[in-house]
Amino acid sequence: MTIGLVSGTVAAAHKDETLRGVTLLVVQELDLLLSPTGIGLIAADCVGAGRGDLVMLTKGTAALHTEQTAGRPIDAAVVAIVDKIEID
Amino acid sequence: MTIGLVSGTVAAAHKDETLRGVTLLVVQELDLLLSPTGIGLIAADCVGAGRGDLVMLTKGTAALHTEQTAGRPIDAAVVAIVDKIEID
Amino acid sequence: MTIGLVSGTVAAAHKDETLRGVTLLVVQELDLLLSPTGIGLIAADCVGAGRGDLVMLTKGTAALHTEQTAGRPIDAAVVAIVDKIEID
Amino acid sequence: MTIGLVSGTVAAAHKDETLRGVTLLVVQELDLLLSPTGIGLIAADCVGAGRGDLVMLTKGTAALHTEQTAGRPIDAAVVAIVDKIEID
Amino acid sequence: MTIGLVSGTVAAAHKDETLRGVTLLVVQELDLLLSPTGIGLIAADCVGAGRGDLVMLTKGTAALHTEQTAGRPIDAAVVAIVDKIEID
Repeated sequence: MTIGLVSGTVAAAHKDETLRGVTLLVVQELDLLLSPTGIGLIAADCVGAGRGDLVMLTKGTAALHTEQTAGRPIDAAVVAIVDKIEID
Repeated sequence: MTIGLVSGTVAAAHKDETLRGVTLLVVQELDLLLSPTGIGLIAADCVGAGRGDLVMLTKGTAALHTEQTAGRPIDAAVVAIVDKIEID
Repeated sequence: MTIGLVSGTVAAAHKDETLRGVTLLVVQELDLLLSPTGIGLIAADCVGAGRGDLVMLTKGTAALHTEQTAGRPIDAAVVAIVDKIEID
Repeated sequence: MTIGLVSGTVAAAHKDETLRGVTLLVVQELDLLLSPTGIGLIAADCVGAGRGDLVMLTKGTAALHTEQTAGRPIDAAVVAIVDKIEID
Repeated sequence: MTIGLVSGTVAAAHKDETLRGVTLLVVQELDLLLSPTGIGLIAADCVGAGRGDLVMLTKGTAALHTEQTAGRPIDAAVVAIVDKIEID
């Protein structure tokens, strides 16, 4: 999993039927020093995260293993809101 | 998922049988500032997208979870047309 | 999927049993301007492609969804010969 | 698989139900010279690893093939503590 | 698949139960000119490869499709010893 910052939302009226009811969040991935990295992703919300939240992001097939994402064309999911990261 | 711009089409008369009937779009991935990034992809269209459309792209195994892609050798799918992205 | 150029072949007498009968092609991935990118791959041929052919490449789990690749340890497959790419 | 160094822990009270009971470790991936590489990951612990341990990391779908990770939204797992790497 | 050079071995007494009996090889990935690339991987051996062998590496879910890897937390497998690569 990776660390990300919820930085926005995306609106898409015209989408695959299987995506209806899914909350989509714009997430900026961060490195361990919490600096932005990567190109930015759209992820399904599984935990009620909102803008400004530090979150944990699961990508790939594993992102389908939640109640909100199972069987949908979703390759990234916000699976936790991070309270604290302790790094040596 | 990532944001992309539909920038063209691809014609391939000689292809795997399982790809017949699939609309293939050339998609340029974009970062959150909508600048081009990556090498460019070919994705299956699931939403009737056309050139110039800003779209949402699902990659990997999850791209197989649509009516148009199930059971086919397809690793990227256009699953939504993006109306608006709001970023802090 | 990505665009690639078939640029060679690979011979391997000693291989996993499940790979017998598979034609392996060396493929150089290309960006949308058809410039070489990436480190070069070996992909299973599903369409009778040969050296110099511009092809479409499927990677990951989806590469297993062809008659030639199903159930084998193959993570990339040539699934079409590209006739024409039109880009804006 | 890749080599990593366990460099911290992450606390997340608010997480997907399926993640309860999983120990999450912050892992810094290393190259073969044991220099840090990549952006840093969070991985599920399968072997009782702790801070400072050199570990082997499995990513993607394969990370789900352990007792601790099966069926969960987990895309990276610590599957071994490395005693020695011998490189030519 | 990619080309790699077997460059070492790794010892790990403390590992996930499902990894027992698997031979782990340190593999340095190579580009088509056989120059080292990437950060170095650990892969399961399926063909009796040894140090100095040029090999073919399968990554991701497909790496699970061999007798030695099925059902294990393994994301990379050595599936062939390469005899010859011919590139234009």
